[in-house]
Amino acid sequence: MTLDHSEYPRQDDGLGELLRYENVAWFENGIVRILDRRVYPTQKRFVHCETVDEVAEAIADMVTQSAGPYTAAGMGMALAAWQVQNASEKRQVEALEYAAHRLSTARPTTSVRMQKITGAALMKAKELLQKGESDLSSHLFRLALDSLERRYRRMSKVGHNLVSLFPKKALVMTHCFGETIVGTMIRAAQERGIEMQLICPETRPYLQGARLTASVASDMGIDVTVITDNMPAAVFSTHPVDVFTTAADAITVEGYVVNKVGTLQIAIAAQYFGIPYYVTGIPDNIKIDDITIETRDPRQVLGIGGIRHTKDAVKGYYPAFDITPPTLVSKIVSDGGVLDPLTLSGYEPPDDANGDFYSGS
Amino acid sequence: MTLDHSEYPRQDDGLGELLRYENVAWFENGIVRILDRRVYPTQKRFVHCETVDEVAEAIADMVTQSAGPYTAAGMGMALAAWQVQNASEKRQVEALEYAAHRLSTARPTTSVRMQKITGAALMKAKELLQKGESDLSSHLFRLALDSLERRYRRMSKVGHNLVSLFPKKALVMTHCFGETIVGTMIRAAQERGIEMQLICPETRPYLQGARLTASVASDMGIDVTVITDNMPAAVFSTHPVDVFTTAADAITVEGYVVNKVGTLQIAIAAQYFGIPYYVTGIPDNIKIDDITIETRDPRQVLGIGGIRHTKDAVKGYYPAFDITPPTLVSKIVSDGGVLDPLTLSGYEPPDDANGDFYSGS
Repeated sequence: MTLDHSEYPRQDDGLGELLRYENVAWFENGIVRILDRRVYPTQKRFVHCETVDEVAEAIADMVTQSAGPYTAAGMGMALAAWQVQNASEKRQVEALEYAAHRLSTARPTTSVRMQKITGAALMKAKELLQKGESDLSSHLFRLALDSLERRYRRMSKVGHNLVSLFPKKALVMTHCFGETIVGTMIRAAQERGIEMQLICPETRPYLQGARLTASVASDMGIDVTVITDNMPAAVFSTHPVDVFTTAADAITVEGYVVNKVGTLQIAIAAQYFGIPYYVTGIPDNIKIDDITIETRDPRQVLGIGGIRHTKDAVKGYYPAFDITPPTLVSKIVSDGGVLDPLTLSGYEPPDDANGDFYSGS
Repeated sequence: MTLDHSEYPRQDDGLGELLRYENVAWFENGIVRILDRRVYPTQKRFVHCETVDEVAEAIADMVTQSAGPYTAAGMGMALAAWQVQNASEKRQVEALEYAAHRLSTARPTTSVRMQKITGAALMKAKELLQKGESDLSSHLFRLALDSLERRYRRMSKVGHNLVSLFPKKALVMTHCFGETIVGTMIRAAQERGIEMQLICPETRPYLQGARLTASVASDMGIDVTVITDNMPAAVFSTHPVDVFTTAADAITVEGYVVNKVGTLQIAIAAQYFGIPYYVTGIPDNIKIDDITIETRDPRQVLGIGGIRHTKDAVKGYYPAFDITPPTLVSKIVSDGGVLDPLTLSGYEPPDDANGDFYSGS
């Protein structure tokens, strides 16, 4: 089977090469190809996954991150279908159920959102099998792309809602890499004639701020400055920063924000200096008590680029995320509007959201 | 002229190799030898300075930092005297005046403290010249070592005063590398039977926390954990940290603390979580308005180990220090006692302090 890739929805290149759909995660001819964000932009290298396990490992190893895993998981479901296309219906369902589980649990903190992606693909596949459809893989590929496109449409609204809170000349700090919102925020600011300057903490250990966020901003022509992760409060104390804003890996019903470690301390510093903190994304139907914070390999903290710079007996600790309470969040900016973090239970997704699988990053 | 180095005061090795006097900065046979802290402990490499300018450049380039520059400057004065030992008295004074200026201004933020070191050496040299003494270099070498020893004696008191504020089982976070206090704090804790665990933010871009503080703690047998600079608040939110403590590059008469960038945001987070912040050191006779914050080469922020990981158009910003207001400081712990940061004008140095050149790091 060969997919007709000539018809895939091509994103305009206005957001820079990192965010082109074919660079985020792409299934074609039995391979899921993912731009390796761990080395970009120093190197432009792709990881090729030939099995669902390899896709899951790429997600776990942070070949892709932020919203990238949602697309990678969708593409992984297409790969799973492709591999068993000639097998019995029972075997196909088994393989897709395995893939859905394996991909959605690759990283614990975002598994609820991931389950929506893989669950939707699984449901779609079962429907198609009942209809006697054989080309499941093409359908699941389209489903993954549709999801990516719908996310951009929704996050474009979020971007506009966000920059409506900015002054005409805005000095903005963010943290880590909010994959979709970085591009849609900048585009919305440019469309509204807002003169925006961006400050990116580098986001150790993977340097997503320095390598990814700053690259997208630079590609889009934005004045962008990288600082180390110990500098946000120092910058707040010496520069007129207007806004601190991040995406979120989860926004709980109580208004807690789960995001890349470091978000919490910038939020505390922002409140100390009277700078508003706007969180972009769609509230999740999850409670704070159901959140698991992933801890990752401490060797990432004890060295850089595979070279250890600490003595042997020194330990490392690497929580991937932290939790910011709603009292430190000024607003949750969603596609449905600008929300108070303490009243998220009133959130209604807009009509075109389909209530479907969605990532707020 | 050959100095008799067999008699130099040898520090016990209980504080680990990084803090041995001969590794901090050492003048012998026309060379100031400085352990290169930029690569330690991955490499144990020394920089050899044959001129005062080279010593000043080593300080500016952060071959040594924290309190290291005070010793390097003292040794640099011995080197300056050695080089002009056979010149006229006028030429000797000129050379020492040049050295005092060059060394004390190698880094702007600490130049007031540095001037005390170089000024004392200059005064000593002039006294010796008046007495007809020819071996100025040996005297200035001893003066530098005396200063280092006196600092350890004073900071041992500070260490004891500090750990008197700790619980019997203490989880302690610090930031960057407070050269002298790290060792004296740990030794005081060990002498008092305090079971101490240390958490060190890595302190980008030079990684002093990961490479220096953690190495000293590890050499001294302390349980030490390194985190990245975006994790302190996350750790406060999940671990029962008892104390945040740092040294200071300057403590102003109003109680402001000038220290490695990142101190401010950890102090803000500590206050948010109700964790006391103890600053160790001796109050300086300087006002906050007279402080200059050094900004360093932004390339250090835009890359690691000489390899740039950001796109060409991305800017960097690197303030070396930040300023923490007295309202965020719980106590200033000096050798004269535990002080309220808002009442430092009442500070009296102990009798044996000699009111002399001193570094609080």
